[in-house]
Amino acid sequence: MPRNREVVHRRLQQAALELFLERGYDQTTTAEIAARAGVTQRTFFRHFADKRDILFDQEIRLETTLVNAVAHAPAHLTPVQMVLFALQAVEAIFEEQRAFIEPRYAVIAATPALNERELTKTTALTELLASGLEQRGIVKEIATLAAQASMAACNYAMTAWLADSSVRLSIQFDRAFAQLSRLFSKALPEFQETEDRGGANRGLKRD
Amino acid sequence: MPRNREVVHRRLQQAALELFLERGYDQTTTAEIAARAGVTQRTFFRHFADKRDILFDQEIRLETTLVNAVAHAPAHLTPVQMVLFALQAVEAIFEEQRAFIEPRYAVIAATPALNERELTKTTALTELLASGLEQRGIVKEIATLAAQASMAACNYAMTAWLADSSVRLSIQFDRAFAQLSRLFSKALPEFQETEDRGGANRGLKRD
Repeated sequence: MPRNREVVHRRLQQAALELFLERGYDQTTTAEIAARAGVTQRTFFRHFADKRDILFDQEIRLETTLVNAVAHAPAHLTPVQMVLFALQAVEAIFEEQRAFIEPRYAVIAATPALNERELTKTTALTELLASGLEQRGIVKEIATLAAQASMAACNYAMTAWLADSSVRLSIQFDRAFAQLSRLFSKALPEFQETEDRGGANRGLKRD
Repeated sequence: MPRNREVVHRRLQQAALELFLERGYDQTTTAEIAARAGVTQRTFFRHFADKRDILFDQEIRLETTLVNAVAHAPAHLTPVQMVLFALQAVEAIFEEQRAFIEPRYAVIAATPALNERELTKTTALTELLASGLEQRGIVKEIATLAAQASMAACNYAMTAWLADSSVRLSIQFDRAFAQLSRLFSKALPEFQETEDRGGANRGLKRD
């Protein structure tokens, strides 16, 4: 969007988050947000459909980038590596939005209705990832398992990233996937020895 | 519960599921469920708090058994092995309820409000598992990662179990954890080689 439009957009987000944290999400009106940002309510509605939209306006961009990345991930990657590849593709969006993400989490955690919406949204995103993997030829059940477990790693990475501003999210993603790998490496050694003889993608792809 | 009470309980569940599948959950009343089961509505309410309770009445038993198992899992197990140990402890509940679980999933999938409730419930169960691990001395972030990723394996196991009645759920749990282990074993080899030198629990427990 044009520079000036972007400045107003960010100012509205900033004002909204301040108010949400000060007096609670439910107690804040769009009129108050517009006033705090120094614009009219009409301007507010040129930027956001409603109050909730302020917290979720990056969703479509995030989804589109993720889905695109899975679709174009190198074919030799394992399903989990494809998800990591896709997460690395959206990393820049998160880095760019960093100042906004921390208060956003706080507001969502404090507001049950938003909490539910965030949960539904995360589930939908996981399903998008899984169906992206399916379209790359991965068996449906494996695609779902890889996507769901990768989301656990993604959450772990986000927590570490928000706690320590000195490490980039891309590094945290790598670390989280490695951590999950270590956690499960001792899960069932006997199965690994007898069944894990094939290549990385053996049994994962449809014939 | 006493034998006769149990028979009526199951008959009510059976009648409810039939009606839910025939005409939809929202279109079914407790009076109709009682009538189909051949009991009075008063009897219905001696067994269930409301219509929704029919689908969720095993939750507390499931939660209690899971939490107890994590609390009493052998101390030498890794976090993920502790979760698997806990899942194996609730396996009998699922095997016992098998005939009920498949139509239950179908009803929940077809009813958006129930879908949301199931999602919230699964998240709560994952958090219970994570805090159980924390109480065993596992670092909070690792406990959450292990619990969330294990739930992905649990979903994978349940799907396989419902698709093939010839294999016990306990075997499917083992297979799912092994599958997840394989999926992530190729996640980031360079990290594994440099960081995974210690014992299974190195860096996972609080000092």
